[in-house]
Amino acid sequence: MKNFEIELKETGKIIEKALDFYLPKSDEYPQKIHEAMRYSTFNGGKRIRPVLTMKAAELFGLQGDKVIPTACGIEMIHTYSLVHDDLPIMDNDDLRRGKPTCHKVFGDAIALLAGDALLTHAFNTIAKNARIEGISLQAVIDVIDRISRAAGSLGMIGGQTVDILSQGVTIDEKTLFYMDYHKTGCLIQASLWAGARLAEAPAPDLNKLDRLGEKIGLIFQIVDDLLDIQGDEKKLGKPVGSDVRNKKSTFPSVYGYENSLKLVKNLSEEAKDIIHEFKNGEFFVQLVEFLVERQY
Amino acid sequence: MKNFEIELKETGKIIEKALDFYLPKSDEYPQKIHEAMRYSTFNGGKRIRPVLTMKAAELFGLQGDKVIPTACGIEMIHTYSLVHDDLPIMDNDDLRRGKPTCHKVFGDAIALLAGDALLTHAFNTIAKNARIEGISLQAVIDVIDRISRAAGSLGMIGGQTVDILSQGVTIDEKTLFYMDYHKTGCLIQASLWAGARLAEAPAPDLNKLDRLGEKIGLIFQIVDDLLDIQGDEKKLGKPVGSDVRNKKSTFPSVYGYENSLKLVKNLSEEAKDIIHEFKNGEFFVQLVEFLVERQY
Repeated sequence: MKNFEIELKETGKIIEKALDFYLPKSDEYPQKIHEAMRYSTFNGGKRIRPVLTMKAAELFGLQGDKVIPTACGIEMIHTYSLVHDDLPIMDNDDLRRGKPTCHKVFGDAIALLAGDALLTHAFNTIAKNARIEGISLQAVIDVIDRISRAAGSLGMIGGQTVDILSQGVTIDEKTLFYMDYHKTGCLIQASLWAGARLAEAPAPDLNKLDRLGEKIGLIFQIVDDLLDIQGDEKKLGKPVGSDVRNKKSTFPSVYGYENSLKLVKNLSEEAKDIIHEFKNGEFFVQLVEFLVERQY
Repeated sequence: MKNFEIELKETGKIIEKALDFYLPKSDEYPQKIHEAMRYSTFNGGKRIRPVLTMKAAELFGLQGDKVIPTACGIEMIHTYSLVHDDLPIMDNDDLRRGKPTCHKVFGDAIALLAGDALLTHAFNTIAKNARIEGISLQAVIDVIDRISRAAGSLGMIGGQTVDILSQGVTIDEKTLFYMDYHKTGCLIQASLWAGARLAEAPAPDLNKLDRLGEKIGLIFQIVDDLLDIQGDEKKLGKPVGSDVRNKKSTFPSVYGYENSLKLVKNLSEEAKDIIHEFKNGEFFVQLVEFLVERQY
């Protein structure tokens, strides 16, 4: 394994330990809801978003562990969005990362409530960042403002809304970009921004990170679309071809497979150009390469 | 109409104007999600929770309009919980306050997302209280902590979880109290607490308000249960008898109708005793009487 992948795994482990600390224990009453929240959270995710938050803080001289509550909150938001997305009234997916989805194990009602609870607890956990020494209260308030916008109806939920309304419909390029940038990019952008804001990064640098986050988000989503066509089901932990079956417009379906590959390549060059404006951005260069080449 | 009811209506109108201000406009893209969020929010609610927040602030000498963002956020949380509760995978209700429920108008997927978006936007709106002059950042952080706990898996969602798991099952008194206190009482308690905390009320007074909130929450829920048996469908805007049809354990089903009435009477006396410990608590005395006598 490359050094980068080891670092990603190690940081991911720190996040998982913190998630275990911040989530209610599964023996707390009513147990069923806490079991469901934990089942969906500890499901082999790559923890990309919280890692971005920690590494963005480090880019501006703040130790990554000072932003762990915020990083965990973001991962809870990501997890809730997957639980709700998988529900029969949404994408109706039975498998996620090789395991039965939350509603398959706990039933639709508990899965709905577990998603709601993860989203609610995310803000509780982010607010806890205010207790960490050296973090300004104003930065925490700004981070809550930013993350709630990124995850809301003008961000991630906006993208999911367009996704739902576009099924079985041919959409234009503008709508495709809106959908994928909002579904995935907004929260990834906010993950980077949050780490940097807690580290008191200056405004021009926050703007640069926003541009970087947009590129990374699009790379992430386009590669997702490509893997749904050419990926290995075993590595992905879910059946491929679900976009075609659900009549979803994706980058390859709108732009073609080869053009989508080219778009990923261009975006990754643009992302690296932004990273080179920072000192010590090596982790992010490798992350971009990892996201482009990932098989899962 | 009594003076109290006029004051409740007037304060409710102030809240509705503020909700209109803080929610994304319905012509913002993607319009469908914003239409659904607004449809469910502007649906003739009594606005009890945000009124409690404003009046609790006033009890400690802070103008009610200084806590409006928090009051609106709490009402958004209450609204989201109704939208998700009404879904076919939960209570499957077609009518709410005399109008078709969100999923009946917008479909299940958009209703799910509209609930998610209201919950997310609630925290965005509460965080905006930090921008209001004279409000301390620490108080806003504390309020976010408290509201997210009250609405989460150890609060409101905990109560809903027990509700779901108890359908068709005979539950004991302890479980009934847990369920109803958590489903309704926790958010009502937090509504009071938040207004007082933003007004920098001292800790012993915050504890008193917590005891008051518990009583008011239980009164609210028991009266709800009683109205589902003896209420007027036209005034309620929904069919009565749904608890019996859904095989739900309620106060009258566990304690009997007369004993539940007595319980409400005792709770309202206890609530008034707490209120009398404060100066200028007249509004709350009348509120308790209103909640006991309400027909809708």
